[in-house]
Amino acid sequence: MKTKFIYTGIRVRDLEASVRFYTGVLGMKEIERSTIAAAKGIAVNLVTEEGGHILELNYYEKGSPFDAKYTVGEGLDHLAFAVANLDAALSEAKKAGHPMVQEIRAPTSRWAYIEDPDGNWIELCQSA
Amino acid sequence: MKTKFIYTGIRVRDLEASVRFYTGVLGMKEIERSTIAAAKGIAVNLVTEEGGHILELNYYEKGSPFDAKYTVGEGLDHLAFAVANLDAALSEAKKAGHPMVQEIRAPTSRWAYIEDPDGNWIELCQSA
Repeated sequence: MKTKFIYTGIRVRDLEASVRFYTGVLGMKEIERSTIAAAKGIAVNLVTEEGGHILELNYYEKGSPFDAKYTVGEGLDHLAFAVANLDAALSEAKKAGHPMVQEIRAPTSRWAYIEDPDGNWIELCQSA
Repeated sequence: MKTKFIYTGIRVRDLEASVRFYTGVLGMKEIERSTIAAAKGIAVNLVTEEGGHILELNYYEKGSPFDAKYTVGEGLDHLAFAVANLDAALSEAKKAGHPMVQEIRAPTSRWAYIEDPDGNWIELCQSA
């Protein structure tokens, strides 16, 4: 079938804490907020400054059929964000309470990881 | 900080089964495959026919520091793909062994979900 990958939805436990992280630390902006009555949930759509792929934060209220016990799990490995200056970005994230938790160095590349409020790994890499 | 959301990485347990699902069922194409020696892993990058956001499949070999016990978990809520005809897409997915596992109907919208080989939820929605 022909498809178009329109967004990535992550589940969040504290909607406002997650909005603060993705907007305040990662510089995304909220473009839409919807209440999904059928799921007893709220969906917040975010994009980075230049637009592009949507990150949807999915919050489920108590009593929602999707309010299952939360384990961050392994399904989502990481979300990757490019930054102009990796050291400056890591310093800024650390000051905001999100220190680097892992670094991978390859011969010509380097990636660093911080965690979002739910423990999802966020990769920061320096764009060329 | 200013960032650009460059890709979504999911962890997969059977790399070729996942490549088959995302290319064969969802119509994505493989654009790059890298071996990450530092992580003892393989990363396969996929995009849909018109390009757009990259889905990265992350596979970790036995002995990799990231080959943790796999629980699909709640961190990734779902990946959303638009299709031209939802019923036809669901029929095609079912024939490929991926039946609909959930449907949400709202007054003016309808979303359906299938599962990828690891149990991640894939949303299919009909584009306008």
